[in-house]
Amino acid sequence: MENRICVYPGSFDPVTHGHLDIIGRVSRLFPEIRVAVLDNPDKEKVFTVDERMAMLKKACAHLPNIKIDSYSGLLVDYMRSIDAGFVVRGLRSASDFEAEFQMAQMNSQLSETMESLFLMTSPQYAYISSGIVRQIASFGGDISAFVPACILQEVNKRFRSK
Amino acid sequence: MENRICVYPGSFDPVTHGHLDIIGRVSRLFPEIRVAVLDNPDKEKVFTVDERMAMLKKACAHLPNIKIDSYSGLLVDYMRSIDAGFVVRGLRSASDFEAEFQMAQMNSQLSETMESLFLMTSPQYAYISSGIVRQIASFGGDISAFVPACILQEVNKRFRSK
Amino acid sequence: MENRICVYPGSFDPVTHGHLDIIGRVSRLFPEIRVAVLDNPDKEKVFTVDERMAMLKKACAHLPNIKIDSYSGLLVDYMRSIDAGFVVRGLRSASDFEAEFQMAQMNSQLSETMESLFLMTSPQYAYISSGIVRQIASFGGDISAFVPACILQEVNKRFRSK
Amino acid sequence: MENRICVYPGSFDPVTHGHLDIIGRVSRLFPEIRVAVLDNPDKEKVFTVDERMAMLKKACAHLPNIKIDSYSGLLVDYMRSIDAGFVVRGLRSASDFEAEFQMAQMNSQLSETMESLFLMTSPQYAYISSGIVRQIASFGGDISAFVPACILQEVNKRFRSK
Amino acid sequence: MENRICVYPGSFDPVTHGHLDIIGRVSRLFPEIRVAVLDNPDKEKVFTVDERMAMLKKACAHLPNIKIDSYSGLLVDYMRSIDAGFVVRGLRSASDFEAEFQMAQMNSQLSETMESLFLMTSPQYAYISSGIVRQIASFGGDISAFVPACILQEVNKRFRSK
Amino acid sequence: MENRICVYPGSFDPVTHGHLDIIGRVSRLFPEIRVAVLDNPDKEKVFTVDERMAMLKKACAHLPNIKIDSYSGLLVDYMRSIDAGFVVRGLRSASDFEAEFQMAQMNSQLSETMESLFLMTSPQYAYISSGIVRQIASFGGDISAFVPACILQEVNKRFRSK
Repeated sequence: MENRICVYPGSFDPVTHGHLDIIGRVSRLFPEIRVAVLDNPDKEKVFTVDERMAMLKKACAHLPNIKIDSYSGLLVDYMRSIDAGFVVRGLRSASDFEAEFQMAQMNSQLSETMESLFLMTSPQYAYISSGIVRQIASFGGDISAFVPACILQEVNKRFRSK
Repeated sequence: MENRICVYPGSFDPVTHGHLDIIGRVSRLFPEIRVAVLDNPDKEKVFTVDERMAMLKKACAHLPNIKIDSYSGLLVDYMRSIDAGFVVRGLRSASDFEAEFQMAQMNSQLSETMESLFLMTSPQYAYISSGIVRQIASFGGDISAFVPACILQEVNKRFRSK
Repeated sequence: MENRICVYPGSFDPVTHGHLDIIGRVSRLFPEIRVAVLDNPDKEKVFTVDERMAMLKKACAHLPNIKIDSYSGLLVDYMRSIDAGFVVRGLRSASDFEAEFQMAQMNSQLSETMESLFLMTSPQYAYISSGIVRQIASFGGDISAFVPACILQEVNKRFRSK
Repeated sequence: MENRICVYPGSFDPVTHGHLDIIGRVSRLFPEIRVAVLDNPDKEKVFTVDERMAMLKKACAHLPNIKIDSYSGLLVDYMRSIDAGFVVRGLRSASDFEAEFQMAQMNSQLSETMESLFLMTSPQYAYISSGIVRQIASFGGDISAFVPACILQEVNKRFRSK
Repeated sequence: MENRICVYPGSFDPVTHGHLDIIGRVSRLFPEIRVAVLDNPDKEKVFTVDERMAMLKKACAHLPNIKIDSYSGLLVDYMRSIDAGFVVRGLRSASDFEAEFQMAQMNSQLSETMESLFLMTSPQYAYISSGIVRQIASFGGDISAFVPACILQEVNKRFRSK
Repeated sequence: MENRICVYPGSFDPVTHGHLDIIGRVSRLFPEIRVAVLDNPDKEKVFTVDERMAMLKKACAHLPNIKIDSYSGLLVDYMRSIDAGFVVRGLRSASDFEAEFQMAQMNSQLSETMESLFLMTSPQYAYISSGIVRQIASFGGDISAFVPACILQEVNKRFRSK
């Protein structure tokens, strides 16, 4: 078998139960999963890269083969730098499919050895997104059904102080 | 790591370059891939299960970790019988996504330990289906762009003798 | 307010938790719901119209404003005959949307006074269909997660005797 | 029957024939419809909340059971505050469906007693959006086919003075 | 300019206002349009090829550059036989798109010189299909909104005599 | 035949192999194609209108019936000003379809004599967009598979100097 590091890239602003569903399931498939926070200075985020990584570490503490990392620039360059052969993404809907199809074809053009895998998000999480969590939290709504308990206080605090 | 047999189920009536794209790519991910021909007596096929398995064996001869098999009944029961933990399917389009989403959720309900993985079909094969191959071949059209060379003669012969 | 009978039409071969999700929710909106089994002699069914109506009656016994009925021919003609002004349908996916959009526009052309309403199926039921239930049951699989307990034995018996 | 106030929320910047199609049809179903203008200070609008409410009042003057209102924050909180049990939205396309499916599931998670209803926009209005009206008006194009006659002058005036 | 014959292929069982919308619009683009009825002996039709051609001739009598024809086998072979360089198809919905995308790519693989063009069906006809016309007519419903007046009697007669 | 100028409008920031696929194919259908760069002062672009036109001229130099132009305001007004009867657009995916369907219906409402044509982008280019090219180039990735060779240096230079 070839290089068996798999990357799960994303913004994770903040991590949700939907992300954790994918992480938990893909962790059974590879010896090492790198959850990689995209550090994109052009897009304003609620949480810093360090904060997002710290929340992911808490939420994934029970999974021994998960490492939390960050990257900037092209995903294919990051993957080459850590010698990772696989990337995994969750699919929630037909419109997710179209966006991910485009990304997968582009990445496959940029790196012949990179393989993109997809898992279908479990139905009870298929409507959750970080954007929806931020929207609800910003109006003081209850987000406990959407994010892991260990980060709930931190997320609420950030939005209440705004 | 857990049980690492991955099943690639389908009708393969006949196998196409689209199927082989998925098989070749997933073969890098698991120590053993079972390509499993569905034996469904309710649906009339052009080729028998044995013929479809023989064509797959020819087309996959260069891949050492691919085994060709057949099954009838529910996929989850077949997977339990060979102790396989993963199933892989190709996604070609948003409508493929919706059908596969439904199947994956149903299978996940029927077997908690079964995980469904998806690969995006490479763009040059994304419009190919066994149905289109049968349609073209039945009118004497040229299918050499759609099926592997090693089975071309056999497929053409079947349709010309009809 | 106008005529407040709402029709929920379908094949119900057999009724599933997905159907009951829609029935229970729409029963809060109208004084009378008619669940109407389509009697289509051109399509072979596993259960007769009478059997499907009997299963629906059992499954809806706790909802006082639900009546079980059957119809043949055009939905708009049936609705005129019982003086119903509304029809309700569940939406599970984008492909459901497209088929229902076409039906709703056609019905609106055939009857100006008929209004079509849609509910989104709850996510835990969005992958369930009668066809999937029949497929699983026909191979002896466990359908208890998909159909109401009160009809489980009857459905299993039918498929096992086949 | 339960509480029968139904909310039709949106930006209405400005109201179009597409919105009025939904309002007119849903007004036959509930004793009271609240058309609720979302007051979102984060998104810049062409018309103020007061202007949008005034245009809606003009356009809905012929419908006695329509009240025009505004809200900020979460829709579920607004609905609780007026004791409304139902929300209605129009569906124009499969991509509308996916966005609304996500919203409906989220709202259903935030409030168990809130029910989301959907109507298919009539085909002659299915391509109209407030965004398209603003785009055409900003270039001096003719928007009379897209907005009600009673607000036409006001919309044109705003864009011409820009 | 190259060969300017354009083919509009289909089953036309029977021709609808949706088909005539496409025919009328594409007739402005090419000196000669061939409306080509697919003669597929494997699929049972309500009207014979000759009957479908006769109805098309009546419905297109006002358009001088339309010729009615039939073909069997592969579309690319028919197009070569009449030296046609273009094929036109109507798109009504996202699911139409996916099926037509697959066909266009396949035809482009089979014939490098064949070009596929698409028109969006006008919204008032976007929900009409020959299948819906047959379904309504078979139950004695009013199809006058869906098919041209000149063939209405013939279609109704066929279904009433069944 | 009527006026036979066809417009291919877009942002072309920068032109890609996907655009050139459409331009090359539609050039066989009309005596004159106007590739028209949208000059939209509200949206920030990487290249100026003049730069985008110059790149298009280089990339289309081998096609004698292609003229490069620019326009601002409504497409229908531009088309009237040059007496063009047709507009062409490429379709890459089901979500492209929905956006283009809306635009085509709106344009058809604004100008009865304007006809919108669509070509399916060839599969090997269907995942390419100017946005993806900009994203890759901005991180120093290799864009030679996505843009024509004659503009490669200019695009890379712009992003490297940023």
